[in-house]
Amino acid sequence: MIPAKVKIVEVGPRDGLQNEKDFVATATKIELVNRLSRAGLQNVESASFVSPKWVPQMADGGAVLAGIERRPGTIYSVLTPNMRGFEGALEAKADEIVIFGAASEAFSQKNINCSIAESIARFEPVAKATKDAGLRLRASISCALGCPYQGEVPVAAVVDVVERMKALGCDEIDIADTIGVGTPARTREVLAAASRVFPRERLSGHFHDTYGQAIGNIYAALEEGIEIFHASVAGLGGCPYAKGATGNVATEDVVYLMNGLGIETGVNLDQLVEIGDFISRAIGKPSASRAGKALLAKKLAGAAPCV
Amino acid sequence: MIPAKVKIVEVGPRDGLQNEKDFVATATKIELVNRLSRAGLQNVESASFVSPKWVPQMADGGAVLAGIERRPGTIYSVLTPNMRGFEGALEAKADEIVIFGAASEAFSQKNINCSIAESIARFEPVAKATKDAGLRLRASISCALGCPYQGEVPVAAVVDVVERMKALGCDEIDIADTIGVGTPARTREVLAAASRVFPRERLSGHFHDTYGQAIGNIYAALEEGIEIFHASVAGLGGCPYAKGATGNVATEDVVYLMNGLGIETGVNLDQLVEIGDFISRAIGKPSASRAGKALLAKKLAGAAPCV
Repeated sequence: MIPAKVKIVEVGPRDGLQNEKDFVATATKIELVNRLSRAGLQNVESASFVSPKWVPQMADGGAVLAGIERRPGTIYSVLTPNMRGFEGALEAKADEIVIFGAASEAFSQKNINCSIAESIARFEPVAKATKDAGLRLRASISCALGCPYQGEVPVAAVVDVVERMKALGCDEIDIADTIGVGTPARTREVLAAASRVFPRERLSGHFHDTYGQAIGNIYAALEEGIEIFHASVAGLGGCPYAKGATGNVATEDVVYLMNGLGIETGVNLDQLVEIGDFISRAIGKPSASRAGKALLAKKLAGAAPCV
Repeated sequence: MIPAKVKIVEVGPRDGLQNEKDFVATATKIELVNRLSRAGLQNVESASFVSPKWVPQMADGGAVLAGIERRPGTIYSVLTPNMRGFEGALEAKADEIVIFGAASEAFSQKNINCSIAESIARFEPVAKATKDAGLRLRASISCALGCPYQGEVPVAAVVDVVERMKALGCDEIDIADTIGVGTPARTREVLAAASRVFPRERLSGHFHDTYGQAIGNIYAALEEGIEIFHASVAGLGGCPYAKGATGNVATEDVVYLMNGLGIETGVNLDQLVEIGDFISRAIGKPSASRAGKALLAKKLAGAAPCV
């Protein structure tokens, strides 16, 4: 039985824009977050509080959070790698702190030069401080369906990271197909295993469309009862592992899917298409959303709304 | 229970190239068909025998069929609107004749200026001649999941056309989402209804990716037990109803899906990616296949094969 209602977590302003080569103006980021929340997205990943030496694109996280209008009920999330990041996020009045870990040892070693277990243990102070401050804590588990370095990632490895993140007190845990290699059967297997150790209704699916499988995987995840999905307007972000390839699944495509399935999202698709057009123009790139492109083309052509 | 094996019908050389603005050289078409059959595609829709006044892009159907190497076991299909087309197809030694009809009255009237019932009745002589000649007969039912003119298409209307096509003696019937508006639940509903009046194993799913839903719909169709799928290498074809929008689902993405699900296709994905690159260069357009782009980027970068 697929759910009647899902929450869509919009990750474009953070996960998307972080992968942009050029710095996107703070005012553009603020407008993007504001327009997304107004379109009905209840959770917007808005910034990273990471070292600007590592991720210069996100150096203005404080200014972005200071500049946005806070829509009541909307959760504004930020990514924090350490206590310094947490302090910045707290000061900026973020609603949700996002920590992260890989399900792949090879990825963890290559990316942050330590084991999965060590990387998660390092988040203990952040997790504790987040809970003490009364904020929401979310964990993102990367490479849950495959790794650019080691290939296959065992289901047991994903479950192990879910359990570690659960022990840190996470309110929500993302199962992320960072490189988009997953297909529906494996997606269901991993989500079913994860939901045996963590409440299914607080697991989310974060799918990349690199191999064109994201919508299939999301449908498969719905069949597993998953109720939270990540997406990036206009497919912002691309794929850092394959030049010119697709990255995050586009929010427009996900909302189109949910509308077709009669699943409530609270998101206005027309507004979302406009936002996709706005940000694509702002960064000077074509939208990677197929639904976005089709709906925009129809609108420009004045075509009947039934197409 | 999803099938262990599927047949992929490659429609790029016909359905794809027919939508190209510029004429594609006969030699290019021949090479495309040959490379596709060598890559393991058992059924290649290779040409149309229609009036060159209507479809100048397909004026060289006879030359294409005369020029290709016939791979044993491969079915070379051609589209024929009438007896004149059938005669051409017969002379060209096509293996399968494709006739067509819409499930939408509005589309039928706008497109061919007659009712659905009339349009199918007109195919009676072609159907009879095809069977008399011992050739395979396939019918393609367009707008089965929605129509650019009337919007919703009742499931009963699709079933009615399936029954009419069955009465003509069709060996295989395509349920086509011509404008890509379908989503998984509706896809399953339509396919389940169609398979109550026609053998499921001879129904095929023809999905367009205009709204990014094709892979989700194919997965849903697999869950309904469908074993035949249409796809177009590099997503050739585009969408004639929305400028710049995506058309046929890309064969690379479909084969990637099947490989991930452990479903046998007989198609070599590496070769397919090369073919997608070849035809995209030949027509001077970027590939619309996400799996194709990602796999090509990895190959060019010399990345590990696991990504």
